[in-house]
Amino acid sequence: MKNFISLNNVDSLDALVQLAAEVKKNPFGFKKHTENKTLGLLFFNPSLRTRLSSQKAAFNLGMQVMVMNVDKDGWVLEMEDGAVMNQGKQEHIKEAAAVISQYCDVIGVRTFASLTNKEDDYAEAFLSKFIKHALVPVISLESATLHPLQSLADVLTIEEHKKIAKPKVVLSWAPHPKPLPQAVPNSFAQWINATDYDFVIANPEGFDLSKEFAGSAKVIHNQDEALKDADFVYAKNWSSYQNYGKSAPELTDWTITSKKMKLTQQAKFMHCLPVRRNVVVSDEVLDSDASLVIEQANNRTFSAQTVLLKLLDYEN
Amino acid sequence: MKNFISLNNVDSLDALVQLAAEVKKNPFGFKKHTENKTLGLLFFNPSLRTRLSSQKAAFNLGMQVMVMNVDKDGWVLEMEDGAVMNQGKQEHIKEAAAVISQYCDVIGVRTFASLTNKEDDYAEAFLSKFIKHALVPVISLESATLHPLQSLADVLTIEEHKKIAKPKVVLSWAPHPKPLPQAVPNSFAQWINATDYDFVIANPEGFDLSKEFAGSAKVIHNQDEALKDADFVYAKNWSSYQNYGKSAPELTDWTITSKKMKLTQQAKFMHCLPVRRNVVVSDEVLDSDASLVIEQANNRTFSAQTVLLKLLDYEN
Amino acid sequence: MKNFISLNNVDSLDALVQLAAEVKKNPFGFKKHTENKTLGLLFFNPSLRTRLSSQKAAFNLGMQVMVMNVDKDGWVLEMEDGAVMNQGKQEHIKEAAAVISQYCDVIGVRTFASLTNKEDDYAEAFLSKFIKHALVPVISLESATLHPLQSLADVLTIEEHKKIAKPKVVLSWAPHPKPLPQAVPNSFAQWINATDYDFVIANPEGFDLSKEFAGSAKVIHNQDEALKDADFVYAKNWSSYQNYGKSAPELTDWTITSKKMKLTQQAKFMHCLPVRRNVVVSDEVLDSDASLVIEQANNRTFSAQTVLLKLLDYEN
Repeated sequence: MKNFISLNNVDSLDALVQLAAEVKKNPFGFKKHTENKTLGLLFFNPSLRTRLSSQKAAFNLGMQVMVMNVDKDGWVLEMEDGAVMNQGKQEHIKEAAAVISQYCDVIGVRTFASLTNKEDDYAEAFLSKFIKHALVPVISLESATLHPLQSLADVLTIEEHKKIAKPKVVLSWAPHPKPLPQAVPNSFAQWINATDYDFVIANPEGFDLSKEFAGSAKVIHNQDEALKDADFVYAKNWSSYQNYGKSAPELTDWTITSKKMKLTQQAKFMHCLPVRRNVVVSDEVLDSDASLVIEQANNRTFSAQTVLLKLLDYEN
Repeated sequence: MKNFISLNNVDSLDALVQLAAEVKKNPFGFKKHTENKTLGLLFFNPSLRTRLSSQKAAFNLGMQVMVMNVDKDGWVLEMEDGAVMNQGKQEHIKEAAAVISQYCDVIGVRTFASLTNKEDDYAEAFLSKFIKHALVPVISLESATLHPLQSLADVLTIEEHKKIAKPKVVLSWAPHPKPLPQAVPNSFAQWINATDYDFVIANPEGFDLSKEFAGSAKVIHNQDEALKDADFVYAKNWSSYQNYGKSAPELTDWTITSKKMKLTQQAKFMHCLPVRRNVVVSDEVLDSDASLVIEQANNRTFSAQTVLLKLLDYEN
Repeated sequence: MKNFISLNNVDSLDALVQLAAEVKKNPFGFKKHTENKTLGLLFFNPSLRTRLSSQKAAFNLGMQVMVMNVDKDGWVLEMEDGAVMNQGKQEHIKEAAAVISQYCDVIGVRTFASLTNKEDDYAEAFLSKFIKHALVPVISLESATLHPLQSLADVLTIEEHKKIAKPKVVLSWAPHPKPLPQAVPNSFAQWINATDYDFVIANPEGFDLSKEFAGSAKVIHNQDEALKDADFVYAKNWSSYQNYGKSAPELTDWTITSKKMKLTQQAKFMHCLPVRRNVVVSDEVLDSDASLVIEQANNRTFSAQTVLLKLLDYEN
């Protein structure tokens, strides 16, 4: 694998999930492949799970880790080619990406969508430029439109908990006080579309995901109908793609509650976290045995560890 | 040991101090007990000694360390059960504690007292909730009311420097320009009460520590009288417990000076640092051979290393 | 070597550069000399290359690293001896330096010039005091007046790319929108003066470097004349030493362009980065094969690794 920013970088989803399961069984057993390797983690936005799970993944592999909050600890980056840099930007992304590549064997990069410029966000303007100038493999730690490390952890979690070969998986929009990126649902849709699960997306009118990632998934605008017979309910808020960045916190009847869960086939509940309790999902669902959210978070370690191995040319 | 937030977690103070002395003699000799273990350090407040000594302790044990400034690098945490999280708080402590537990074998947490809400502070509201939801052992890196890693280092330092079996130890209040928590003096009192030293607390009227920690220690409101024949003088400012959070920077005659030290039995001078020079203690005392403050700071490493070993089930 | 803050700490420049070349060939081959050693990195200013390359250097040696942004994560330091610390400063540099020395085998310190107080800057007020109270070797990660880790990397880079025994090296001032310290050019001049290269400094009138570091180097105020037959062009902005801290962003004819490079002997282009594109140097020069800037950044790792070895008593 050359980089890991999307499912498109993955040769075989099955093989990747299989390796993740092996890594989880024997997390310290792969060190000889990654000796003397260094992971650099660049954060342009806050992060808890990704920050810690990526470090833990590297530690499990005996790798060294350098964490940098670029916005706070480093320089302000210029993105535009040909810019005359006589204003506030101190370093061009060309130099930054090439220089950081001198010190790391793999670079993880975290950026968020602007939610104001749809074209730039969906062109992955920053990540694309960074990869163009980087000289080592790059892992997305969540980008403007995708979050593939989360999706790999999610598929691993479903594989561990599914009771039938082709479970019904429902990705449901849920309310949130602030407009959020589409990265997690886009990515989840992209990955689940690559499985043979029965996949349904439930969201209000005006909140359909980009066709690029939603693909041929069935989209239903009635949440109750969508939840019927679900084996897995993956809740997540996202702001509108069509009316870019618009949110709808007033749609409180989309909150996942016990009553909603009763419509399902005793479904398991999933969320990428952080989650707004009693807004996205009620306490009773989150605190019930149906909730897999902590297991998803745990699987982030093995997801990152698996991707690091593949980027460092491990052959499984 | 399940957690380390107070002397109450310690089976035998003697055995713990004994192990700390062994660790100090052979700091790199305990790695086989802690292989592949990871320490997470969560800071909600500034820290220098604790931040560095905890890392050094983990390094000496061959452990990996993840440091997170939660307030700056992560999410804003909700503490209240049942909260409808539609305002600024992004993640509930329930998820945060459980998730971080997925990535660490031990979690260190640093929080300070509010000094405005005595009940919350003395209930250790934050730390208690964090421990309740954490799935691995938790070390206090200083909490609202106690600082046990400091106290273990302090007892080790006294043991190394005492010339008689039962030295007279005086904990003396000292002035400070700002109101400070009671964590260090509370904890010192709790630990010294568990030794057989002759223990005296000297503080102005209105600055008696909570009975919960001061216990049966002799309290004297006249500093000169208290210092008489002391073998160790432990200076520290704290704000009032009774008149909660009130300070008294004007009581400059409580500063520890050479003249005050002459009242003692050639006592050693101790302070947890950071120290306000010429406010808490004069330059001449701090720069004299009587000062143990740097040795106390050094012992923080072995204190943390010892506690990590015990939390990871090392049997001495 | 006791500390590394200037070329004055170096016994033999030749031997140091020779060791750096050996380290570069076999970066992981020196671990047995540095087992169980810890590097502390203290930043009082932003840093990307130095932050990452110093960590990478320590990792290559199997050392542990602690990074601290002192201004954000720690306490505000008092510098003055005898100060009555009843204002905002929380810890004296005396304690800070001695305490950090308890947890690290080598301490790296990054500070910048004030550019307002020439006397303090050129006395290296902060670094001198820190070293005075530190109990372990100190590495400058750039100080008010010098940047020796950069200079060692620069000399290594020139040695790798020179085609004749005594190349002509031109250090040229270049424009910049903001006033910058003189640390990099001072240090470069100090180190190149210690080689047998043909060394010329080109800068506008009023921008001559301090004699302390420029030494006997030929200074030419006409850039075109200076560049003639150059083998290496090292561009860098600096603010005025004479008219302390004054900058001259309007001197845009000092930008290094392809046309300027045609005056040279097919010179290689060097810069310490970060660089303002199309202000200090044009895109076409920086993106050409003549540019060594990424190789310079790469050599920062081996420069730091070499200095760490010498400070930890490695004998080559």
